[in-house]
Amino acid sequence: MGDDLLSYQEAAARVASFATERIQTRPATERVELAYAAGRVLAKPLCADADQPPFARSTRDGYACRADEAAQHGLLRLTGSTHAGSPPAGPLLSGEAWEIMTGAPVPEGADAVAMLEHVEVLDGHIRLHDERKLKPGANIVAQGAQAVSGEELLPVGTILGPAQIALAAACGAAILHVYIRPRVAILTTGDELVPVQTTPGPGQIRNSNAPMLAALVASAGGDPWVFPAIADTPAALSAAIKHAASPAAQADLLLLSGGVSAGKFDLVEPALAKAGASFFFTGAQIQPGKPVVFGELKHCSNEMLKGFGDLLRGSILATAESPLPFFGLPGNPVSSAVTFLLFAAPLMAAMAGCRELGPHFVLARLTESVPGKNGLTRFLPALCDANVPMGSLPEVKAVATNGSGDLAALGRCNCFLMLPDELPNPEVGDFVRILPL
Amino acid sequence: MGDDLLSYQEAAARVASFATERIQTRPATERVELAYAAGRVLAKPLCADADQPPFARSTRDGYACRADEAAQHGLLRLTGSTHAGSPPAGPLLSGEAWEIMTGAPVPEGADAVAMLEHVEVLDGHIRLHDERKLKPGANIVAQGAQAVSGEELLPVGTILGPAQIALAAACGAAILHVYIRPRVAILTTGDELVPVQTTPGPGQIRNSNAPMLAALVASAGGDPWVFPAIADTPAALSAAIKHAASPAAQADLLLLSGGVSAGKFDLVEPALAKAGASFFFTGAQIQPGKPVVFGELKHCSNEMLKGFGDLLRGSILATAESPLPFFGLPGNPVSSAVTFLLFAAPLMAAMAGCRELGPHFVLARLTESVPGKNGLTRFLPALCDANVPMGSLPEVKAVATNGSGDLAALGRCNCFLMLPDELPNPEVGDFVRILPL
Repeated sequence: MGDDLLSYQEAAARVASFATERIQTRPATERVELAYAAGRVLAKPLCADADQPPFARSTRDGYACRADEAAQHGLLRLTGSTHAGSPPAGPLLSGEAWEIMTGAPVPEGADAVAMLEHVEVLDGHIRLHDERKLKPGANIVAQGAQAVSGEELLPVGTILGPAQIALAAACGAAILHVYIRPRVAILTTGDELVPVQTTPGPGQIRNSNAPMLAALVASAGGDPWVFPAIADTPAALSAAIKHAASPAAQADLLLLSGGVSAGKFDLVEPALAKAGASFFFTGAQIQPGKPVVFGELKHCSNEMLKGFGDLLRGSILATAESPLPFFGLPGNPVSSAVTFLLFAAPLMAAMAGCRELGPHFVLARLTESVPGKNGLTRFLPALCDANVPMGSLPEVKAVATNGSGDLAALGRCNCFLMLPDELPNPEVGDFVRILPL
Repeated sequence: MGDDLLSYQEAAARVASFATERIQTRPATERVELAYAAGRVLAKPLCADADQPPFARSTRDGYACRADEAAQHGLLRLTGSTHAGSPPAGPLLSGEAWEIMTGAPVPEGADAVAMLEHVEVLDGHIRLHDERKLKPGANIVAQGAQAVSGEELLPVGTILGPAQIALAAACGAAILHVYIRPRVAILTTGDELVPVQTTPGPGQIRNSNAPMLAALVASAGGDPWVFPAIADTPAALSAAIKHAASPAAQADLLLLSGGVSAGKFDLVEPALAKAGASFFFTGAQIQPGKPVVFGELKHCSNEMLKGFGDLLRGSILATAESPLPFFGLPGNPVSSAVTFLLFAAPLMAAMAGCRELGPHFVLARLTESVPGKNGLTRFLPALCDANVPMGSLPEVKAVATNGSGDLAALGRCNCFLMLPDELPNPEVGDFVRILPL
C-alpha cells in the first residue's frame, strides 16, 4: 500500500469505471412533494398525463377566425369571446370572428388568430389591416403539439431544476418518485482535533474537515452522517469503521479524512485492511491529495462482527448488501476538498442516480502566471471572476497559499486551477481548466 | 405603459442600478448554526480568533531538528516524540532530533523538519541522507503564517460554501451571522389555472409557474411566499397585491406572472397603477419576455388602506418601510423563467446581501445553427453539454420548441442561449453566451 501511484487520469478512470458499474444498481426510491423536489433525481420517468397543450390554444390576444377569410381583408362579424379558462366555444361559422385571449381555447371552426394589433374593430366587426397576412395555424398551438398524452417527458436520472418542476406541475405530478440521497459516513481522524465549540488547548486545532465535508456531501446531493473526530488509535478507528460499515447503518459511502500518509499515526489504511478492505488505489500523482485511497469494504466481515452473538451475526450477514466503497482523504483541508471533488463527488453522483457524473471542469483564462512544477497534476486554490465583458471567458488566478493546510487562503477561493502533468506551466492568457468549489 | 421598450442592456442596467442602491440598505440579519449555513450570506466579517496555525506546525511526518546541524549529515540523537494533538514540547538541544508527525507542534529550538523518507534511523539516532539538504523553515508552517489573530478572513457579503464553512469552523464560529433571505411574494394570475393536484377541466391548465418560480426564488437564495392563483378580475388582483404589499407581510419583492400584455384581461399593470406603483420599465426588446414590467410600490398607500380604521392606518403608515419592488413577468413559462433569471435574480442577490449580482452568463460553443432574427435580444431554451475534451468550451445547441408556452421543451433544457440584437445570427463553432437555468 502507498507506493501504487496512479496518474490522475488513471485514478479518475478507476473511479468512473466503479461509478458506472454502480449506476447499474439503482438506488432505493422515495416520494417527495413537488415543493421539496428541487435538486432531487427522478426515479420514475415523468410522462404527460394529457396532451400538451390539452386544447388548441391561442398564443396571442386577438381574434380567432378562418385564415383564408381574414386574409381577404373583408369584415368578419364578432360572435363571441373566449378568455383563458373558458371551456372551448364555437362553432365559428363562415364570415365570423371570435374575440380570444392568450391561453384561451380556440373555438371549433377557427384555424388562426389575428393579433389584436393587426386588426381594426368596426361596429361589431373586425377587419385585418391591409398590409397584414394571415395563414392557417397562425398564433395557435395545436392540441398535443408540445407533448401527447402518455409521452415520456423526463427520463429516469434527471436532476429536477425549476424547469423540470414546472413540467411536473403541468403533468399533475404533485408527488414525485426520486432516488434516496446517498448516505455518506464522514470519519475525521486526529488526536489534535477538537469540536468547533471548543477552544483548542496547546497543540490542538478545531475540526474543520467534518463541517466542510458535510457541506460538500450535501452539495453533491448526499446525506451527511458526521462522526465525532476519531482518536489516533487502532481501536478507536476500527470501532468507528465497524459502526459505519454495519449493515444497520445503511451507509452508501465512507469518507475518512486524515491518517493516510506514511507516518506512525497514519492508521487508516491498516484499519481498513484489518476490516477486510480491497484497495483500488492507494495514491495518485496529484498535488495536493497524493495519498488519497479508494477501495471497498464488505459491509460486515466475520472479523468485524466479533462480539455479536451467532444468531445476530447470521442475520446481519444474510442482509448484507453490496460492499461499501470508501475514500481515505488526506487530512489537510485543501487536500480533502480537492480529492472529494475529483473522486468522491462523481461516485456520489452515480449513487444518487444521476446520468452525468462529472467532475465538471470549466474553462477560464489565466491572468497571472503560476510557478511550474513537473510530474504531478496540480490543483491550486484559485479565484475565478466571471464578471467579464461579453464573449470573454471567465478569468482565473491562483490564490497565494501557505500549503495545503491554509484554510484562510481556501476561504478566499471559489475554484481549483488544474495544471495537468503534461502542461504544468501555462502562460498568462492561456485557457486553463478549473474545478468550481 | 407598454410602449416604453428599453433594449435588453438598458433594462438590465436599470435593474442593476436599483439593485446597487438597494445594497446600501443592508438586509436584516439572523444567526444560524454552522451546519445550516451553506449557501447563506455572511452579515458580519469572519475574523481569526487566534493565529492560524496557532503554533509552528509540522507539515510532514519526520524529525524536528536544527537545519544547520542536520545538513552536515551527522548523527542526531532522538530525544522525544510529538504527535498531532500533543502540546508543544522541547526544548530541543544542540545535537538532538525529535520524532514528529504531520500537524504536530514543532518543539522549541527546532527550526526544520526532515522528512521521514529522507533520513536513516540508527540506534536511537537519525542521519539525513547524503543527497538531501535541509534549510531552516523546511516543512514547518510558522505560527500565524496563514492568519494572525483578529485578522478579517471573510468580508460581509461572502456566500458561504464548503471552504468558508471550514474556515469558520477553524475560527470557532459555531454560530454565524447571516442576512435574512429575501421574502418573495409570488402571485400567479389567470382564470385558466388550477392547482397541481387538480385535473383541469375544459380550457383549464395546471399552474406550473407558481412551483417553478418558487424553485427559482429558492435557488436564488430567497424565501418563496406562494399565493394561490389569482382570478382575472381587478378586485381579486388588487386584494392580492394589497395583501402582499402590506407592511405586516414583510415581503421584500413581489413577483406577478401573467396579465402583462396588452389584452382585455391583462390587468396587472392597471392594478399596480391603482395601488400607486411607479414603473421603471414596462417592456424590453427581448424575446421571450417582451412585456416584462419593473417598478416599485409604496408598501401601503391611502388608497390601499381604505377599509382600515384611521388609527390602524396611521400605525401602518408609521412603520412603512422602503417601497416594495415588483416584477410583472409574462405568463408563459419560458418567458417567466427567462425574465426571472435576467432581472429578478440579480435584484434578489442584492437583497440577499451578496457582493456579486449577476446574471452570470457562461461561454459555450454553438454546435447547431439557429434561425436568425433582428431587433430583439433573444434567449432560446438550450441544452449545454459540459462533457467535452480537455481544454474545450462546453457545447450548446438550441432545443426545438413550440413557442414560449412549451414546457416539455423547457424540461429538456439546462440553459438559455443568448442571441444579442447586434449579433443575431451566430454560426456553428462560434462562441456564444448562455445563462444557466
